[in-house]
Amino acid sequence: MPNYPDSLARLIQGLKKLPGIGTKTAERLAFHLIKLSRDEALQLAQSIADIKKNLVNCSTCFNFTERDPCPICSDAQRDKSLVCVVEQPKDLMAFEKAGEFKGVYHCLLGHVALLEGIGPEDLTIEPLLKRVQKGGIKEVIIATNPDLEGEGTASYLRDVLAPACRKTHTRITRIARGVPAGAEIENVSQAILADALSGRRDFDD
Amino acid sequence: MPNYPDSLARLIQGLKKLPGIGTKTAERLAFHLIKLSRDEALQLAQSIADIKKNLVNCSTCFNFTERDPCPICSDAQRDKSLVCVVEQPKDLMAFEKAGEFKGVYHCLLGHVALLEGIGPEDLTIEPLLKRVQKGGIKEVIIATNPDLEGEGTASYLRDVLAPACRKTHTRITRIARGVPAGAEIENVSQAILADALSGRRDFDD
Repeated sequence: MPNYPDSLARLIQGLKKLPGIGTKTAERLAFHLIKLSRDEALQLAQSIADIKKNLVNCSTCFNFTERDPCPICSDAQRDKSLVCVVEQPKDLMAFEKAGEFKGVYHCLLGHVALLEGIGPEDLTIEPLLKRVQKGGIKEVIIATNPDLEGEGTASYLRDVLAPACRKTHTRITRIARGVPAGAEIENVSQAILADALSGRRDFDD
Repeated sequence: MPNYPDSLARLIQGLKKLPGIGTKTAERLAFHLIKLSRDEALQLAQSIADIKKNLVNCSTCFNFTERDPCPICSDAQRDKSLVCVVEQPKDLMAFEKAGEFKGVYHCLLGHVALLEGIGPEDLTIEPLLKRVQKGGIKEVIIATNPDLEGEGTASYLRDVLAPACRKTHTRITRIARGVPAGAEIENVSQAILADALSGRRDFDD
């Protein structure tokens, strides 16, 4: 790299570590940050520092939160007997945006991926098992991603949770796979169509 | 937006103000920043704060620098009689990366764009004129962008600098327009080909 001033070079290096940001984009962002007013730049810097200071994982569902338990777990309106298990807080956020789900969540904080060295013990599976064993849960909906790791994690969870679920009369369900709403059949992939066919249900379901 | 914790929402809002970053990308970056170690996140925050604290414009060429005059202006090896006029420090950086130019620079910090309310008085044209009037400059190379605003700014500069340049025997030149090195003729636009034809030179030039 040519002679960027030190502080500019450090910022570009820092930005390049973010996902999807290469040298060109990092430079563009850095030059933009220079143009921001002092207040705006310091505010952004403060926001980055703040999330490390203020955010913790909810001790019940492991979502990111500023106070523990998180607003969802401490919301009396939510159905605590219905637990949706997701991989990451951002998946939880996607369900919240959809606005359909009135139960509570459990964030695994990842998926089992043995090749990447992520085993079940790296996830929040133990606390999930304890939540089930404590009783009072009618249904655990496993909403891990419909990909290789997500399906593997789902199967693993089913096996691990099954004994406790039998004891506490808890259903274990898996979110449906199939054609996405709004899609055109001619454009969806073979894998999606295969899923949609094998998961077909009677019309009166 | 669903219930993001306040500090996360603030960070996402801050990131969305950056160029080319929409809601989705801002969320993705924010979730990545949460996953960074405390040290890495604070380092990035510090880098952003630092550029506002440490960077100033060089009082000679207006490039960003941590000490004034900047390393290029204070480099005894550079030819001070050759001044390349660019719109922005990032253009200067592009020339430095190319590594061909051994003179010094002058950053206008923008281009004339009357429709956007950017007049000549918003740029560093006055200090450039003073540099020329002081004498000792053999050539001013105008390297504004080959677009509407850049060409307009170039014409304006030529008119403004002409009297002083005549007095001090300073050449005013404009960087060449034409087919870009490495391009395939069949793929370049009509405008580029028109430029390349009208700017053609004798082979022995």
